[in-house]
Amino acid sequence: MLGIEEIGYYIPTERISNYQRKEQFGIDDHFIEQKIGVKQVSLKSADEETSDLCVKAFEELGRKTALEKEDIEAVVVVTQNPDRNIPHVSAMVHGKLDLSPQCACFDISLGCSGFVYALSVFQAFMAANGMKKGIIITADPYSKVVDPNDKNTALLFGDAAAATLISDTPRLVSQKFTFGTLGVEHEKLICNDGTLFMNGRAVFNFAAKTIPGDIRLLAEKNDIALDAIDLFLFHQGSKIIVETIADKLGIPLEKAPYKTYDYGNTVSSTLPILLADELHKEARTIAICGFGVGLSWASGLLKRL
Amino acid sequence: MLGIEEIGYYIPTERISNYQRKEQFGIDDHFIEQKIGVKQVSLKSADEETSDLCVKAFEELGRKTALEKEDIEAVVVVTQNPDRNIPHVSAMVHGKLDLSPQCACFDISLGCSGFVYALSVFQAFMAANGMKKGIIITADPYSKVVDPNDKNTALLFGDAAAATLISDTPRLVSQKFTFGTLGVEHEKLICNDGTLFMNGRAVFNFAAKTIPGDIRLLAEKNDIALDAIDLFLFHQGSKIIVETIADKLGIPLEKAPYKTYDYGNTVSSTLPILLADELHKEARTIAICGFGVGLSWASGLLKRL
Repeated sequence: MLGIEEIGYYIPTERISNYQRKEQFGIDDHFIEQKIGVKQVSLKSADEETSDLCVKAFEELGRKTALEKEDIEAVVVVTQNPDRNIPHVSAMVHGKLDLSPQCACFDISLGCSGFVYALSVFQAFMAANGMKKGIIITADPYSKVVDPNDKNTALLFGDAAAATLISDTPRLVSQKFTFGTLGVEHEKLICNDGTLFMNGRAVFNFAAKTIPGDIRLLAEKNDIALDAIDLFLFHQGSKIIVETIADKLGIPLEKAPYKTYDYGNTVSSTLPILLADELHKEARTIAICGFGVGLSWASGLLKRL
Repeated sequence: MLGIEEIGYYIPTERISNYQRKEQFGIDDHFIEQKIGVKQVSLKSADEETSDLCVKAFEELGRKTALEKEDIEAVVVVTQNPDRNIPHVSAMVHGKLDLSPQCACFDISLGCSGFVYALSVFQAFMAANGMKKGIIITADPYSKVVDPNDKNTALLFGDAAAATLISDTPRLVSQKFTFGTLGVEHEKLICNDGTLFMNGRAVFNFAAKTIPGDIRLLAEKNDIALDAIDLFLFHQGSKIIVETIADKLGIPLEKAPYKTYDYGNTVSSTLPILLADELHKEARTIAICGFGVGLSWASGLLKRL
């Protein structure tokens, strides 16, 4: 049975402090600490490309677990900020890591729901093709598209990448998933001429309205009561959205952590970064849920083996 | 069991004739008809976006088979020329077609190997999630990135899209696949600052060297002799590459057709366009093989039910 064995991640060390932007954006400490929950955002260097972030996350994974490059049978990169559109980032990563010619590579274009989708898509692909070791890399550096003077986005998004080893000796195995799309609302979070535009209120309302029901559906599909789930890892869009969803579901906040004060919303990497820390802890049943660009959402239930 | 039930495609009616570019590029009829095998390339109109091509292919699929939008549980769009990078094209298509909120949508970024990959990835995803109806859309309009004065690319690539219905009442079901990547060679076919660059000789040599062995591997994995395969549909990169691969494998050309004289290499849509015509014919065992951007390749074996 395939599942998550280990996760490595890379968060660039450079930060932009939101405290230093209080005057520019007319915000206060309460807004920073309690509303968005982002004190500073991580920022890749100008010469770091998306594929470089992928390689660094992969290398961190390699420090955590023995990884023979020739054993890797598949790599998927989840991104909407590729180095370039042709070729796919996974091919560039394949080249930089000098992986085997027999290694399957493809990219998935999804935003904040990307990790959950990729977990289902990639595990199914690997299982169908008899593969035993593959890597899901999430890397969506929004600094490429964020206008630093746009209050709706500049204070929120940080750069990072995560590399998740899917193998036949897993710690966490996935159960049933849920997926959804509201394509008619796609303009609420969109790149126009290379610059990100977000209607923050609309995206918040979408998540607050949609995700609680989706989590209930997830529990129902998996035939489990909500309070039998040990941990809920919600996409770290902002502190307020995580708390709002938890509140609507009656989940205590210690079971639905918000942790990304010091680097921000890293899009599809928020969930694997949270999961990396939980992999070696006790929670036996973990719900994960991503939501955002598309508008799109996906939830999954993970069980410890 | 899931498989291919029906395929619809859309090729824009506008054409650019290669005969009218003989002087500009210093080419002759032999080059046009026997080497590249592209007499004219199809061209989308300036206001047709990638998602529009997807919708038109979907509509053509809907003319061929009864399709209730609320029954569609998943859509994948294969492209490296999205309308924009955020959001994914499948979300925009979801919105334009007004599909169900429960419909899963994601894009795969791959070039000429994209359809074969998508067939494996998407069917595995659907099966793992208990889905019965989904659509693979390929739409990679290279006119967005081709320099009309670049002989290496302008004479070859045409615009098109194809929509493939994957369902539990299939005509063709896939057997085992092969996949491969040569990421170190990715610069041989790449977009630089929005313009496609192709080292035609290098890509030709890669395909001529790699694909025959991959087809032999495909046959071996599927425990079938090459001459027991009724039809070989190779990515229509050019007439000469299709004939070279067939020749190296000792396959007669009538079993490895080249057909894209009148619209050119439509990237990931070449295979579903060829397959659309074969779906209602006799071939019982069909090998399909895509190769190109990445460099990447994938092959699959399809059997008629």
